[in-house]
Amino acid sequence: MARWERRDIPVRTLATGHELTIPVFHCHGKNERPLAYIQANVHGAELQGNAAVLALFDLLSETEPLGSLVLVPRVNPVSENQVFGDYVAGVYDFQTGMNFNRGYLYLTGPSRGSNEACYVDVSAFAASHAARPVAEIKPAFHEALRAALTAAREEAVTWGTDFRLEFALAIQQMAIEADLVLDLHTGDRAPRYLYIPEGAHDAARAFQIPFVLEVPHKFGGALDEAAFVPWQDLANAFTRTGRPEIGRLVDGFTVELGSMNAFSLAEGILDAGRIANALRFYGILPGPVAPPETSIFSCNVGDYRSIYTPASGLVDQAVKPGTAVRKGDVVARIADPSRCKTLPPSSREAIVEVTAPEDGIVILFHAFSSISRGARLLSMMTHVKPL
Amino acid sequence: MARWERRDIPVRTLATGHELTIPVFHCHGKNERPLAYIQANVHGAELQGNAAVLALFDLLSETEPLGSLVLVPRVNPVSENQVFGDYVAGVYDFQTGMNFNRGYLYLTGPSRGSNEACYVDVSAFAASHAARPVAEIKPAFHEALRAALTAAREEAVTWGTDFRLEFALAIQQMAIEADLVLDLHTGDRAPRYLYIPEGAHDAARAFQIPFVLEVPHKFGGALDEAAFVPWQDLANAFTRTGRPEIGRLVDGFTVELGSMNAFSLAEGILDAGRIANALRFYGILPGPVAPPETSIFSCNVGDYRSIYTPASGLVDQAVKPGTAVRKGDVVARIADPSRCKTLPPSSREAIVEVTAPEDGIVILFHAFSSISRGARLLSMMTHVKPL
Amino acid sequence: MARWERRDIPVRTLATGHELTIPVFHCHGKNERPLAYIQANVHGAELQGNAAVLALFDLLSETEPLGSLVLVPRVNPVSENQVFGDYVAGVYDFQTGMNFNRGYLYLTGPSRGSNEACYVDVSAFAASHAARPVAEIKPAFHEALRAALTAAREEAVTWGTDFRLEFALAIQQMAIEADLVLDLHTGDRAPRYLYIPEGAHDAARAFQIPFVLEVPHKFGGALDEAAFVPWQDLANAFTRTGRPEIGRLVDGFTVELGSMNAFSLAEGILDAGRIANALRFYGILPGPVAPPETSIFSCNVGDYRSIYTPASGLVDQAVKPGTAVRKGDVVARIADPSRCKTLPPSSREAIVEVTAPEDGIVILFHAFSSISRGARLLSMMTHVKPL
Amino acid sequence: MARWERRDIPVRTLATGHELTIPVFHCHGKNERPLAYIQANVHGAELQGNAAVLALFDLLSETEPLGSLVLVPRVNPVSENQVFGDYVAGVYDFQTGMNFNRGYLYLTGPSRGSNEACYVDVSAFAASHAARPVAEIKPAFHEALRAALTAAREEAVTWGTDFRLEFALAIQQMAIEADLVLDLHTGDRAPRYLYIPEGAHDAARAFQIPFVLEVPHKFGGALDEAAFVPWQDLANAFTRTGRPEIGRLVDGFTVELGSMNAFSLAEGILDAGRIANALRFYGILPGPVAPPETSIFSCNVGDYRSIYTPASGLVDQAVKPGTAVRKGDVVARIADPSRCKTLPPSSREAIVEVTAPEDGIVILFHAFSSISRGARLLSMMTHVKPL
Repeated sequence: MARWERRDIPVRTLATGHELTIPVFHCHGKNERPLAYIQANVHGAELQGNAAVLALFDLLSETEPLGSLVLVPRVNPVSENQVFGDYVAGVYDFQTGMNFNRGYLYLTGPSRGSNEACYVDVSAFAASHAARPVAEIKPAFHEALRAALTAAREEAVTWGTDFRLEFALAIQQMAIEADLVLDLHTGDRAPRYLYIPEGAHDAARAFQIPFVLEVPHKFGGALDEAAFVPWQDLANAFTRTGRPEIGRLVDGFTVELGSMNAFSLAEGILDAGRIANALRFYGILPGPVAPPETSIFSCNVGDYRSIYTPASGLVDQAVKPGTAVRKGDVVARIADPSRCKTLPPSSREAIVEVTAPEDGIVILFHAFSSISRGARLLSMMTHVKPL
Repeated sequence: MARWERRDIPVRTLATGHELTIPVFHCHGKNERPLAYIQANVHGAELQGNAAVLALFDLLSETEPLGSLVLVPRVNPVSENQVFGDYVAGVYDFQTGMNFNRGYLYLTGPSRGSNEACYVDVSAFAASHAARPVAEIKPAFHEALRAALTAAREEAVTWGTDFRLEFALAIQQMAIEADLVLDLHTGDRAPRYLYIPEGAHDAARAFQIPFVLEVPHKFGGALDEAAFVPWQDLANAFTRTGRPEIGRLVDGFTVELGSMNAFSLAEGILDAGRIANALRFYGILPGPVAPPETSIFSCNVGDYRSIYTPASGLVDQAVKPGTAVRKGDVVARIADPSRCKTLPPSSREAIVEVTAPEDGIVILFHAFSSISRGARLLSMMTHVKPL
Repeated sequence: MARWERRDIPVRTLATGHELTIPVFHCHGKNERPLAYIQANVHGAELQGNAAVLALFDLLSETEPLGSLVLVPRVNPVSENQVFGDYVAGVYDFQTGMNFNRGYLYLTGPSRGSNEACYVDVSAFAASHAARPVAEIKPAFHEALRAALTAAREEAVTWGTDFRLEFALAIQQMAIEADLVLDLHTGDRAPRYLYIPEGAHDAARAFQIPFVLEVPHKFGGALDEAAFVPWQDLANAFTRTGRPEIGRLVDGFTVELGSMNAFSLAEGILDAGRIANALRFYGILPGPVAPPETSIFSCNVGDYRSIYTPASGLVDQAVKPGTAVRKGDVVARIADPSRCKTLPPSSREAIVEVTAPEDGIVILFHAFSSISRGARLLSMMTHVKPL
Repeated sequence: MARWERRDIPVRTLATGHELTIPVFHCHGKNERPLAYIQANVHGAELQGNAAVLALFDLLSETEPLGSLVLVPRVNPVSENQVFGDYVAGVYDFQTGMNFNRGYLYLTGPSRGSNEACYVDVSAFAASHAARPVAEIKPAFHEALRAALTAAREEAVTWGTDFRLEFALAIQQMAIEADLVLDLHTGDRAPRYLYIPEGAHDAARAFQIPFVLEVPHKFGGALDEAAFVPWQDLANAFTRTGRPEIGRLVDGFTVELGSMNAFSLAEGILDAGRIANALRFYGILPGPVAPPETSIFSCNVGDYRSIYTPASGLVDQAVKPGTAVRKGDVVARIADPSRCKTLPPSSREAIVEVTAPEDGIVILFHAFSSISRGARLLSMMTHVKPL
C-alpha cells in the first residue's frame, strides 16, 4: 500500500508569536511521479475542498496510486481565522489587502524584484537543452525552478521576508515539484466549475465538471498560473527553437467545488470521485478514465464577465447559478424598500431588475444578499461553446 | 383607502458627517389604533423581514386596515453597512461591541443612569390611577412612557448622547406609541420561529409559525422586551392593587423569518401572510383569523439551550434546522483534516461527532461552516410542549 | 534566590485548531504568600504593561521577594491578534462583541447560570466560620472560591464551554489564589492613572500614580472587581455578624500605564518601579515603601464622566490628558471641512468647540483623531479630591 | 477676491442606498490657470492634510491667487468610515482589498480593459501635433485625456461600474484638468516627506520638506503617477520626434504630512505654508518663493527600502523617524516576554534587536507597536544624496 508522511509547515507567525502551520500529507504510491499537488481552502471561506481531501484520504487507503500525491487541506490558516461576527472574510489579507491567491512568484519572469537569479530564462534554458530528450528536460527544468525559488528566498534575507513572500515560498516549494497542481476553491454562490490551461480539453473532460473557463498563458499571480505558465513558457521557447513536440509538461487547475460557506462530507465523496477521475487521466491513479456524464460548456476567461450591480439593495436571484440565459433575461432583482418614494408604497418601486447584457450562462452570485452599488452582482460565461 | 406618510429619521452620523437615516412608513387606516410598530433588519445580516415589509406594502394597498401601522424596513443602516469582504457582520456594533438588539431603555425600571425621571414608577402610577377605566389607563401610561423617554433624552444633553442611546431613543420614540410591536429578525440557519411574551398563546397561534419560545417578564435589553415588559410591570402593579383584570395591554414579538443572508421576494409574500394573520388577531387588519396549518411546539427561553462546539473545524449538519432529536442523536459532525495524526489518514479521525445532550428540537446552526471551539454550534428547544 | 516556573496555558482554539496560549511565569520567593497575580495586555492594543513585566523580570533577578508572584504578560492573544490594517482593535471580541474585561465570573453572587454551587454564599460562610481566626478564614475562603470555580467549570461540561467562560476560567483559576491582583491596562490617550477599591487610599499612594478612580464594591465583570468584590462581600458578611475587624483580605487594582499603542522599554522600568513600591506595601517585596513624589487626585468612578462628541470630525486636543480644567474651558476642537457651507470657506465654520461641562481633570481622549458623533470624545474626573 | 464654488460629488453608494459624497471647493483666482488640484485623506487614517486644507481656506481669503485651485478635503469617506474598535483601517477597501491609492486609470497606456479609446496614444498625438506650439499642445492633450476618461466611463455602461472605477472616475475627472496635483497623505509614524517626479528638484525645494523620494516615470496606480506620467509619456514622445523642449507640462506630488492618526490645527498652518510656497513656485499664488530652511535629502524610490520584522512582538523604537543611521545601528527592539524560555526570565531574552542593513535615514515606523513577523517594521532611505 501507499506510504504516508505528514509534516506541519509554518506559514505565518502571529503578533503574539504563535505559529500558524499547515498540515501536509504526502502519499507515496508505486512511483514518486507523476506527482500531484492538491491544496484546499486558500481562501478562508471556501471550505468544500477539505471534504474532498478527506474523501481522498479514504479512497487512497483502498487504492494504491501509481504516482504520488501531496495533499494540503486548510492551506491558509491566516485566512480562515479572519472571523468577523458570524462569517469569515477570507479572500483578502486584512493586514495587507492582498488576495491570498494573487501573491505567488512568477518563476520564469520578473515577479517582485529585479534580481535575475530569481527566475529562469526559458530561452537560455531551451538553448542549453536544445538536443536533450524530454526525460532529461523535465527534471532539469524542475531543478532550475527550484534554484530560482531558492534565490528568491535568499534575496529576502537582508531586508526580511514579508507576509506575501513567506506564504508564496512555503506553497511553491511544494507545488513546483509537481506534475499536476490542483487548487481547490469554491465560487461565491455557484455550481461546480473549473479553470483550465487554455486548450487542455481532454484533461478538462476528466474532471466531469459542467462549466469550464480557459485561462490564457499569462501570469496573473494565481497558483494554477504559477504552476503551468512557466512550463508553457518553456514549451514556447522550445517551439521557437524548432521543437514544438515538447509541449507543456505540467498542468495547473483551479477547481471550484460549489459555494462559499458550504461544507458537506457527502458531497465531498462525489468531489473526490471527480478529482480521482482526473488523477487517472494523469496516470496518478490506476484504472480507466470515465467519460463526462453531462455536457460541458466552456469559454475563455476573457469572456467570463461580471455584472456590477447598478443599484444597492437586497438580492433576489431570478435564476439559479448554472442557468443559461438570453440577452435581456432578468437575472436578479435588487430590492430596497427605501426606494419607495411614491405613496402608497409598492414593492414595484423598490425593485430594480437586472438583465443579462449578453447570452450566456450565469455561474455565480455575490455571496451576500445585501449588496452595494458597484459590487460584483454575478459573473456569467459568454460566447459559450460545448467542450 | 389608507393614508400613508413617509419620514426619514437619522440614527447615526458617520465620522465624515454623513447621516444614516431610516425610512419610516406610516399607514393610517380607518382608526389610529390599534397601532402596530413593525421593524426589520436591526441585525445587518438578517434580511428577510424586508421582503415581508415589501409584501405588506402591496397587501395594504388592497386592504384598508382597521387600525394603523408604522413600518420600518432596514432599520439599522449602521449594522447593514458593516461589510467585511463578502459578508455583513451585523449583530455587534464594531465601534462599541454592543449587540444592536440589547441597548433599548427599560422605561419602568432603572436602565442606564440613576435619574428617576427616566422611568415610570408603576406602583405609583397604579396607585394614582387606581379607579380609572382601562380606556383611560392606557393613554395615560403611554403618556408616562413618553415623558420618561423625553427625560432620558434631556438627561443626555450635558455630556452628550452616545451611539447606543441615540439609536434607542430613535426607535423607542416610535415603538412606545404602539399597541403591538413586531421586530423582524432571522436565525443564523433556521426555520421560522417566534419569541412571545410568556403565555401569549392565542396570539402566538395567529402567526402560524411552528416553533415558539416564551420570554419571561424580565427586561434584557431587546425590543420585544422593551415593548411588553413595561406593560406587564403595570399589569402586575394593578394586580397588586386588586385589579388583575387590567392585564398586559401591549404585546411585543421577535419574529424570526428563516436564515441570515437569505432573501426571497416570493417567501416574503408568505411571511407577510403570517404577519397579516397576526394583525387580524390584534384587530389591525379586518377579517377572520386563520388557524395554524401545522402543529406548534413551544418551550421557555430558559429551556432553549445552545451547544458550544467541543472542537474546532468544519460543520457538517447531521440534521436540518427544525428537526426533533432524541438525547444522544448525532446532530453535527465537526471535521478537521488537521486532526489526522495516524497514518494513513482517514476521515474517521478527522471527525468529531456532536450529540444532543437532551431530547428536543434543533432550531438553528451557526451561520458559518467553519467554527472555533467554544462558539455556539447550534441552539435547540428542550422540554418542548405542543402549544 | 527566587525559584521560577513557566507554564503555557491555552485560552482559545482557533477555527483551524491552533491553540492560543499565554505564558505564565511563577516566581516563588521566600514564602508562597503574600501572592501577587499580575497580568498585562488583556485588551490587545494596551501594550505597556508588558514593558513593566519585562522590567519586573530584571528587578526580581536582583531582589528576592518575601512573597511570590504570578506574572502573565500578553494575557490575551485572541485580542492582540485582532489586526485590521495597521491597528489592533482589542477591546471587544470580534466574534462575540464581548469586552474582554467584562466577562469574569462573580464568585460570591449569581453570574451566569442559576446553579448555586457556582458561587459562595458569604452569609453562610461567615456563619460557619463565625469564631475562626483570620488565619483560618482566609485559606478557607480561598478554598470556597476554588470550589465555586470548579463547579462553574463542571456545569459547562454537558452543553460546552463558550469562549467567554473558557477565558474567565483560565484567568480566574490563577487570580483567585492571589492576595493582590494587578491588571495592567492603558487608557486610550492618557497619563498613568489607577482604579482602586473604594477607600484603599494607603495602597493607592504606594503606586505613585497621580490620578485615582475609586471603584465601589459592586461587581461589573472586570478583573479587579472579580478579585476584590468577593472578599469585600465576605468582609461585609462578617461585619453583619459582629466581626468588622476582618475587613477585605484581598485587593484588586486596574493600573493604567499611559496610552494605547505606546510601548517603551525605558518607561517600563519606571512603571516596574511604581509596581514594586506597591508590592513593598503589600509585603511581597522587601524594603520600605516610598511616599508619592507628586500630589494625587481622586474621585469616585461615578464622577468619572465621559463627553460624547456633539459633532463628527477630526479631533484637535485643546488640553493635554492629565490637565485640570474649569467648567466652560475648551477641551477639544472637532474640525470637518465639510461643514464649510458659507463661501469663501473658513476654518472657523469647520470647527465645533467642545467645552468642559464641569470642573475637573481631563484624563483620556479617544484613541483616534477622527470620530463619529456620539462616540466617547474624552473622559474626565469631576468632584476631584486630593488623596 | 477669489470666487468660490462648492459641489458635493458622490463616490460610493452604501448597501442601504445612502450616498457618500465628497466636498469639492473650487477657488477661482485671477485666472483659471495654472490650476492646482489638492486632495487630502484618501487613506482614511491619514488626517493631517485636512488641517492643511483648512489653513489654506483661511490663507486664500487673504490672498487672491493668480491661478485657481480645486481643494478636496476628506476625499475618501469610504475609507475614513472603516472603523474597527478604536481605530480606522484606511489603506485597503474592506470589500475588495484594493489600496485606495492604487486604482487610478493610466490614461496613456492600457489600464484595465483592452478598449483603445480608453487611453491616448502619445506617439500618434505627438505626430499629429508635431508642429504646434506648446500653448496649443497643452489644451489639446487635456482634451485628449478628457476623451479617454469619457471612453472609460462609457465602456462600463453595459456591465456596470465597479467600486474602483467609480472612485477613479470621480477623482480623475477633476485631477486631469489640473497643471499641478497634490495628494496629501501621511506616513505611518513619520516626519514630513515628499514624493516627486524624478528630477523635479526645484519644485521639490519649494515644499521646504527635508526628505524627498524620487518617483520614476512609470505608472503604478497612485494619483501622483496618474497625474504626471501621461504628461511625461507625451514629453518622451515629442522628444522622439525631435522636440525635447516640450518637457513635462504637468506635475504630481504625494505630500506626506507626518504620522497617521495625528491631527493638529496648529501644525496645519505650517503645512499650508509649505504648500503655499510650492503654489508660488507654480505661479498659482503671488509672491516670491522662499528657499528651504533646512537641508533636503533625497533618494530614488527604488532605494527607499523596508525592513520586514524578523520577529513578532512589541516595537520599541531605537531611533526617531527622520534619523540618519549607519549600517549595523540598532533601529528597533522587538520585545516579547513569551520568548523568555530560560529561567529566571530576563528582558534580554525577550528582545530581538533589529539593525540597519545599510546606511540611510529612517523615515517611518509601522503604525502600531505590536507587530507580526513579516510585517513592515520600518522604511528607510538609502543611497541618500543632498538635493
